Amino acid sequence: MIDHQRIRNAALRAKVMSAEEAALLIPCGSTVGMSGFTGSGYPKAVPLALAARIEAERAAGNPFRLKVWTGASTGPELDGALARADGIEFRLPYNSDPIARERINKGEMEYLDMHLSQVAPLAWQGFLGPLDTAVIEISGIRPDGALIPSSSVGNNKTWLDRAGQLILEVNSWQNPALEGMHDIYYGTALPPDRRPIPLVRPDDRIGEAAFRCDPDKIVAIVETHAPDRNAPFAAPDAAARAIAGHLLEFFRHEVAKGRLPASLLPLQSGVGNVANAVLSGLLDGPFENMTAYTEVIQDGMLDLLASGKLRMASATAFSLSPEAAAALNARMADFRNKMILRPQEISNHPELIRRLGCIAMNGLIEADIYGNVNSTQVMGSRIQNGIGGSGDFARNAYLSIFMTPSTAKNGAISAIVPFASHVDHITQDVQVIVTEQGLADLRGLSPKQRATLIIENCAHPDYRPALADYFRRARQGSYGQQSPLLLDDALSWHRRFIETGSMRVS
Amino acid sequence: MIDHQRIRNAALRAKVMSAEEAALLIPCGSTVGMSGFTGSGYPKAVPLALAARIEAERAAGNPFRLKVWTGASTGPELDGALARADGIEFRLPYNSDPIARERINKGEMEYLDMHLSQVAPLAWQGFLGPLDTAVIEISGIRPDGALIPSSSVGNNKTWLDRAGQLILEVNSWQNPALEGMHDIYYGTALPPDRRPIPLVRPDDRIGEAAFRCDPDKIVAIVETHAPDRNAPFAAPDAAARAIAGHLLEFFRHEVAKGRLPASLLPLQSGVGNVANAVLSGLLDGPFENMTAYTEVIQDGMLDLLASGKLRMASATAFSLSPEAAAALNARMADFRNKMILRPQEISNHPELIRRLGCIAMNGLIEADIYGNVNSTQVMGSRIQNGIGGSGDFARNAYLSIFMTPSTAKNGAISAIVPFASHVDHITQDVQVIVTEQGLADLRGLSPKQRATLIIENCAHPDYRPALADYFRRARQGSYGQQSPLLLDDALSWHRRFIETGSMRVS
Repeated sequence: MIDHQRIRNAALRAKVMSAEEAALLIPCGSTVGMSGFTGSGYPKAVPLALAARIEAERAAGNPFRLKVWTGASTGPELDGALARADGIEFRLPYNSDPIARERINKGEMEYLDMHLSQVAPLAWQGFLGPLDTAVIEISGIRPDGALIPSSSVGNNKTWLDRAGQLILEVNSWQNPALEGMHDIYYGTALPPDRRPIPLVRPDDRIGEAAFRCDPDKIVAIVETHAPDRNAPFAAPDAAARAIAGHLLEFFRHEVAKGRLPASLLPLQSGVGNVANAVLSGLLDGPFENMTAYTEVIQDGMLDLLASGKLRMASATAFSLSPEAAAALNARMADFRNKMILRPQEISNHPELIRRLGCIAMNGLIEADIYGNVNSTQVMGSRIQNGIGGSGDFARNAYLSIFMTPSTAKNGAISAIVPFASHVDHITQDVQVIVTEQGLADLRGLSPKQRATLIIENCAHPDYRPALADYFRRARQGSYGQQSPLLLDDALSWHRRFIETGSMRVS
Repeated sequence: MIDHQRIRNAALRAKVMSAEEAALLIPCGSTVGMSGFTGSGYPKAVPLALAARIEAERAAGNPFRLKVWTGASTGPELDGALARADGIEFRLPYNSDPIARERINKGEMEYLDMHLSQVAPLAWQGFLGPLDTAVIEISGIRPDGALIPSSSVGNNKTWLDRAGQLILEVNSWQNPALEGMHDIYYGTALPPDRRPIPLVRPDDRIGEAAFRCDPDKIVAIVETHAPDRNAPFAAPDAAARAIAGHLLEFFRHEVAKGRLPASLLPLQSGVGNVANAVLSGLLDGPFENMTAYTEVIQDGMLDLLASGKLRMASATAFSLSPEAAAALNARMADFRNKMILRPQEISNHPELIRRLGCIAMNGLIEADIYGNVNSTQVMGSRIQNGIGGSGDFARNAYLSIFMTPSTAKNGAISAIVPFASHVDHITQDVQVIVTEQGLADLRGLSPKQRATLIIENCAHPDYRPALADYFRRARQGSYGQQSPLLLDDALSWHRRFIETGSMRVS
């Protein structure tokens, strides 16, 4: 039920209206900056009302499309509903919604896939064009008019500051104990006025607990009571557990060699099956007093926090299963002092990732034998989600690790290919690759040395001979020998998959 | 003539010996960290003596090869001589020597091409293995034993600190007025002890004028009097002048739009014909009080400093023509307060590049229609030089610009291709592409929007129809439409070049 006590500023209470009324305030063709990061903290009512309006307008012969900016992925009520209505002409910086993905891959919607740390600065620099309206979910409004953030921070500070008009969704489903957990840094600037960001530990607080907001820009406030898109948690499978095992063994080895502290270094971890397996592995591992400096707090990280092995976690959003969200809500008092949610500009800032020395752990779609990584485009052209923060972390991390099962689609796709059909992470940014087959420690190796190790340690045995054969032939027939390449064969595995449904030679 | 007054510490003077004697102190199979960045400040006597020793050892049936680390490129007396003797088994982080390049491309020498900002931290982290010997050119030794740097700083601080033993070359050819120009920062650390780097303007001095050095580690000092490899300056041709013209027009436009300050932002510029043309263009342009925060000070930058339009330049090395080097030496007193040479870890540091908001201007070998840039490998496998600092700057810059003539080899190679045969810079890091044909401002555009602009504005008219045809067909036949790709045709231009000597359809 809607909690009408969440708006503690009388003047602002007068701006409450329905989602349908608020949606009417967004002009056709304009640019809308929405909240939302990894399925949490996105507006849930106004986008749905907007989608209904778009469909009605189209039925009346008035095409109506918008440019939509967010923090990262949102939920079906936002990207799903707007994409279904064909209401998005341009989308940035990240999408994981299946309906929007389908539109992008059919060429019906333009998509700019961005480094998540760079969205706010590029907006401030004026490089993305004007932002007309912001639609931001918050968990409450303080008596002084400051806005209490919701379950994600993302780009909200920037959208609130930059947009011409503001529409707020006050979601009373969000736990009131979120208040005080956020750290909104107001020290960013445009060059030449940028200064060092004074954060030296993941637990440093350098900002304010709430968003500043110009009340005159607020044109509508909508009250909601709706859960985040909290996706069910899939228990790690055997491949994920094997990947986690190899990685934990590597961490133990690095600690023994003196190349990692005993409490490791701040962890960055993506979401999903493999990431959760690694976090589960850490639950049983020997490392104590760990920290996380990452984008999202997912199920596995909550477990690590509960165990005490993870001392604290800094992120920009939650990304939880419904069960974990319920558990967190029930024990928020225990958890809230161990978590900080920051703007994604700060959670993903190159300056801070390099300073803190993060251990970056990201997934991939495919890696080639030299370790160029494709994180985003299946067969080189079909977008899966986006690069997200992986580029921010991989290039600036102390250790940059990429993890994947060695095959996909029941073995029809090899995650290790002769040549990456799209590159998101160049070899210089890929230090370790782990599959269920094993781990390749690529630090300090030349491309050819990397290839030998990746084929032997990471490729699936079914594909290993063909990869070794390609590499052998490339060492004979390539134009140059820095990273031997057979131009005729390089993309043949992808061609075969599209033609036959499998990368295997039948 | 050798100036014996350069070693102002009596105890150290006792360690002077010949280059041949010093070369005998380097064990077979060991790792040697040498000074040198872009042809300046590299040791000139010991590597030559080492090459002679390697050839003698081989003639005597004793294979002798080394791992060689530097700052960046060096000169014929180092990479050239050692590569000719086949004395390098492994090389990092950058090479531009033609003999070494040939060995790499024949598969006779392993080469790890690295982000230049990351060499020092990776060495400290222990990720590159032990460093046995450092061979460092300096311009003198102070009475207190501190080492006065030479015409490049590069990784010298790190090599001096990390190496087991030190061999110094004191080169009295270097201008004694170099003393005081350098800024050696000693505040770096390993995580979790890293702190903000306190540099907020290109002219801030945050370190010391000389290298600290443990005298007990010094096993040899060799006196030399030899010039740097200062390459002749080629006057910009018509294409380079046209590129510069487009870029200056763009800067004027950005200033008018309020997206750049009137004095621009700190410039980063590569070397060569196009870079010099841009700097020459700035000499006649409307921008005053400019600064540079870059890797090298080349001829064009000296001219800008002399004119007063460039207020100061921060770099890690000089890269001058013999004429400019002579002019600088003659007027060093006028110039020295306007220039700061820093370790490459600082000149290229992501934290500082992002904070200062550099305007990055780099060259390329090829860009594909979506703006993926290949900076390093001709036809995807034959190394040209290396990624150098371009990744440090392009990802973290305020504006990331890539410049190239639209064709190479008298038109046989198009710099714009359907698909990059190797990727060093992903589309997210490439905001502007300029050729003599025109400029493509890619900020805020999706891949397909970028393709239209790159083909129309940047491609040579001889190749434009074929590119447009490929893009049209890819929009019909691609697996996905995020960045349409025809797997059969993607690398066909490169195949055709190798087979026929031209990318043109004959």
